Amino acid sequence: MDIATIIGLAGAYLLIIMGTGFNLGPFIDMPSVYIVVGGTVASILIAYPLKKVLGIIGVIKNVFLIKNSSPTETIKLLVGFAEQARREGILALEARSQEITDPFLKKGIQLAVDGTEPDLIKDILTTEISFIEARHKYSITILEFGATIAPAFGMIGTLLGLVLMLGNMSDPDSIGPNMAVALITTLYGSLIANTICTPMAAKLGGYSSEEILTKELMLEGIMSLQSGDNPRIVEQKLTAFIAPGLRAAIIKEEKK
Amino acid sequence: MDIATIIGLAGAYLLIIMGTGFNLGPFIDMPSVYIVVGGTVASILIAYPLKKVLGIIGVIKNVFLIKNSSPTETIKLLVGFAEQARREGILALEARSQEITDPFLKKGIQLAVDGTEPDLIKDILTTEISFIEARHKYSITILEFGATIAPAFGMIGTLLGLVLMLGNMSDPDSIGPNMAVALITTLYGSLIANTICTPMAAKLGGYSSEEILTKELMLEGIMSLQSGDNPRIVEQKLTAFIAPGLRAAIIKEEKK
Amino acid sequence: MDIATIIGLAGAYLLIIMGTGFNLGPFIDMPSVYIVVGGTVASILIAYPLKKVLGIIGVIKNVFLIKNSSPTETIKLLVGFAEQARREGILALEARSQEITDPFLKKGIQLAVDGTEPDLIKDILTTEISFIEARHKYSITILEFGATIAPAFGMIGTLLGLVLMLGNMSDPDSIGPNMAVALITTLYGSLIANTICTPMAAKLGGYSSEEILTKELMLEGIMSLQSGDNPRIVEQKLTAFIAPGLRAAIIKEEKK
Amino acid sequence: MDIATIIGLAGAYLLIIMGTGFNLGPFIDMPSVYIVVGGTVASILIAYPLKKVLGIIGVIKNVFLIKNSSPTETIKLLVGFAEQARREGILALEARSQEITDPFLKKGIQLAVDGTEPDLIKDILTTEISFIEARHKYSITILEFGATIAPAFGMIGTLLGLVLMLGNMSDPDSIGPNMAVALITTLYGSLIANTICTPMAAKLGGYSSEEILTKELMLEGIMSLQSGDNPRIVEQKLTAFIAPGLRAAIIKEEKK
Amino acid sequence: MDIATIIGLAGAYLLIIMGTGFNLGPFIDMPSVYIVVGGTVASILIAYPLKKVLGIIGVIKNVFLIKNSSPTETIKLLVGFAEQARREGILALEARSQEITDPFLKKGIQLAVDGTEPDLIKDILTTEISFIEARHKYSITILEFGATIAPAFGMIGTLLGLVLMLGNMSDPDSIGPNMAVALITTLYGSLIANTICTPMAAKLGGYSSEEILTKELMLEGIMSLQSGDNPRIVEQKLTAFIAPGLRAAIIKEEKK
Repeated sequence: MDIATIIGLAGAYLLIIMGTGFNLGPFIDMPSVYIVVGGTVASILIAYPLKKVLGIIGVIKNVFLIKNSSPTETIKLLVGFAEQARREGILALEARSQEITDPFLKKGIQLAVDGTEPDLIKDILTTEISFIEARHKYSITILEFGATIAPAFGMIGTLLGLVLMLGNMSDPDSIGPNMAVALITTLYGSLIANTICTPMAAKLGGYSSEEILTKELMLEGIMSLQSGDNPRIVEQKLTAFIAPGLRAAIIKEEKK
Repeated sequence: MDIATIIGLAGAYLLIIMGTGFNLGPFIDMPSVYIVVGGTVASILIAYPLKKVLGIIGVIKNVFLIKNSSPTETIKLLVGFAEQARREGILALEARSQEITDPFLKKGIQLAVDGTEPDLIKDILTTEISFIEARHKYSITILEFGATIAPAFGMIGTLLGLVLMLGNMSDPDSIGPNMAVALITTLYGSLIANTICTPMAAKLGGYSSEEILTKELMLEGIMSLQSGDNPRIVEQKLTAFIAPGLRAAIIKEEKK
Repeated sequence: MDIATIIGLAGAYLLIIMGTGFNLGPFIDMPSVYIVVGGTVASILIAYPLKKVLGIIGVIKNVFLIKNSSPTETIKLLVGFAEQARREGILALEARSQEITDPFLKKGIQLAVDGTEPDLIKDILTTEISFIEARHKYSITILEFGATIAPAFGMIGTLLGLVLMLGNMSDPDSIGPNMAVALITTLYGSLIANTICTPMAAKLGGYSSEEILTKELMLEGIMSLQSGDNPRIVEQKLTAFIAPGLRAAIIKEEKK
Repeated sequence: MDIATIIGLAGAYLLIIMGTGFNLGPFIDMPSVYIVVGGTVASILIAYPLKKVLGIIGVIKNVFLIKNSSPTETIKLLVGFAEQARREGILALEARSQEITDPFLKKGIQLAVDGTEPDLIKDILTTEISFIEARHKYSITILEFGATIAPAFGMIGTLLGLVLMLGNMSDPDSIGPNMAVALITTLYGSLIANTICTPMAAKLGGYSSEEILTKELMLEGIMSLQSGDNPRIVEQKLTAFIAPGLRAAIIKEEKK
Repeated sequence: MDIATIIGLAGAYLLIIMGTGFNLGPFIDMPSVYIVVGGTVASILIAYPLKKVLGIIGVIKNVFLIKNSSPTETIKLLVGFAEQARREGILALEARSQEITDPFLKKGIQLAVDGTEPDLIKDILTTEISFIEARHKYSITILEFGATIAPAFGMIGTLLGLVLMLGNMSDPDSIGPNMAVALITTLYGSLIANTICTPMAAKLGGYSSEEILTKELMLEGIMSLQSGDNPRIVEQKLTAFIAPGLRAAIIKEEKK
């Protein structure tokens, strides 16, 4: 569970509410919600296939709720597999592969245990990685599209309000409040873009590259253990993927 | 037929109309239509050759009405061809090629049946793919140009209205309504850009890459069956192009 | 002669004039012309060497007035040359080269007739193509620079007008008309950018890539006919450059 | 310690304060600070993992406080090492490596002294360089995100203020001051972006490429001295990395 | 000396002054100068090291005052050297190298005369070219940074002025003039960006690529004459770098 996102979101809105002096009433206007939220969703539906738009919810949920296996733990797991494969043969991994929770790693180990050709394993897993990456990229693109289109619908709403207001200025006292309502859509559009779409797209991008790195680590590890590499070599190959600080930590731990 | 686009377009305008309290009168102004719609079309004509601009209508219609062959069905079709070619010889495909509706696939199969050199087949079909891609890209470019130029003509219209209004302020009561009319062009420009040009360009881009993928799949399949590959190999080569989820579906189906 | 450009330009201004109710008087202001048109030209002179800025007029005139040889005609011409060269020897092209109007093709044929080394011909013509491309690119860059700088000078003019107006508000009746005049520069800047610079740059880009394609076709044809290729091979090599639709047209015509 | 940054920051604010006539009172408003500073930080927390956001402070401090070893000094040091290694053997560097303050250089020399395989040294140090670079890049990305998001929260704050003000215009005298307060958030957002985030990101980028250059110089030097290169060769290889002016300085110094 | 730049700069300001009716008084305001000019310089100092910022003055002066050797003259000079080297041996160039004013060419000829290894000459001169290019690029980056930051400080100044004005609206007659003063900073920012930073960066970019081309021509010429190439070959190699029009001019001149 990602704490920072929740702290950030809660914090942003708390600070904004504080900034208004806890006076939220003037900022709630249902027609403005229809125009900005509805218009943004409608425009996304014009731009992307329904299935992909619905898929984004799954991607976001996945990314925020499922904890990525940390690279260091993945390396330790793979080195452990390599040791066992060396002692008891690669078939011994069959039983252990049942415990693996990551479906990508599980599939890879099973392919190796089944004696699949190394080239085919590499091909299958590489395609799978590129499709995971493409799926993430697609969701990021939709969020970035939302970040552009939401302020545009905010402006459209404000223009609608201004045209209505300017066309009917018989009551001077209503000008101020009418204009206030007209500006609310611009506010909504800016909030959707700057507290949801833009930062979520950035975080999704970060998570995605982390997950891709872990998957590439797994691929390298599976290839290495299938070719019967010495567990030390497996470790050396894998630690090359990670930050020097983490690398030192793994080596230190082993020396103990 | 693409439902999401229609839902999206209808939804966007319904929500906007709801947001105005079903009061459309003040938003209809013919001179504003001339300036924004006309100006945008005129500027597109300055920027792109007439033939290409007219071509965009065909591309959009094609893309929204013609159902792309789904990758899984294309794979099944090609594997079926490979099986028949293996049993009865490649000439047996001549009759079946008549039933193919996709002109690209039909042409490819006929070239293979005619005994054309593999290199030449590849060259012909690759050029054809690159021209399909370029034609799509061109239409996307024109839509993106429209998305930039429509708001600019919206602003030009508003400036025209403001200059006229400011130059003649003898009647204070007309200031509001005149300014309302001036703002309508900005509204039109923003609606054209954000409900039509920008999302259509995005959807066209998505459809285009799907169609290109299917065409590349067909090319790979034709090359593979012409070289007399085993149908299983053909299938393996082609499933590498598609998402692991779909791939599993094909394999599962066969095992039945 | 490019009809679409003229229709577009005339149409854009006609629609704008219609939009103002054929009331052009309030939109003509000489000091605004000085600031926006003059300032844009002056800023272009700071940014680009005088010779290049003057050169742009030639490039635009060339591009709009000289009809590009169509790719299909160029192919037919080159295939004809190849047939004659095969029958009567390459020297027979000497006489015919006199009739060629395109200076690039003429030069290439003469180099081939003179027995210049193929590598040298290729080198000379490739450099020539890259310089043609660079010259076009340069003009496009200047137009795009104009598209950015003209609205900036429009805003500068409006700021000048506003400062003068706000500094002297003793006569309330002059505020409106003064502000109208101030806004005219922004209008001019936007018109220059959106009806001239931006769409012209796009059209120039399209023309340029068409011309480059034709030149590459000529280069390929000259190399092919100099090496004594069979006219059918020359044709096959050249048709690979063009859209499948056009390709089919050439082949059909021959079969007749 | 970087003087220019401090002069720049102090100067910018001094000039702004002078520009206001030393009248800072009207520009201080706590709710505006909550909305802009708080909202920007909150949005950064949504967009980037907490650990990375905290890490940025360390990177900035490091970059501004730790003096980069200058390339010329690094070259002299490495040439000195090469001379000693040639005279007394590479093991003689063990003692000297203790005095090295740069951890990257120290690690590299120790690896060379330990007789590690050249390929492995190169691999380890290259990974380390790419992680240093990625860490810097990450901080720059966060600063650039701040430069985009701070003005957005400035605008959000101004919209909040305008909506509140317009909804309650019973007291005409309060309109001016209320609008002044509403504009303060836009001012804050612009100041954060243009005096802190944008220029700091630029300076960080400059420092980063300087540090990476020095590290690559060290890597080249370590590889060269381990392979037993003549000190003159080491120097020649390393001076190729630096500006001709600096290169001449090193050579001149030696001739003395 | 570059005439166009001066004509452009003088012209831009003359036209602007004409546009204001030769009434400059209202546009001069010292606090606005402090905020915009001072703030821009201060922000540049935060973003770039002091030495590089000072260096930009030298680069601009160099670029505008020192006349680049024209490519055609450089070619004629190098062909002359090649002829002399062929007749009297390469050592004969020693004396002539004293007359060369371009330090890059002088250095290259001296290296060739000294009998330096071709690879080393190429390495030394290539590094020198890349450092010249980097130095130019750096100055362009600083100018482009100025083009972004100056309008931002213009807006900051206007916000400062508006907040002060709105907070104290007791005297209605002062509102206009105060707002005029507030807008002056936006005007200054826009003038700095659009008449100085942006066009200067463009011109510097053009000059830079011209100078780099000339240096690459010199490098090619030096390598060619050192390897004892026939002067005709030297000429052919070098003319490949320049526009076909100029190329023809050189050849024509020789035939005379």
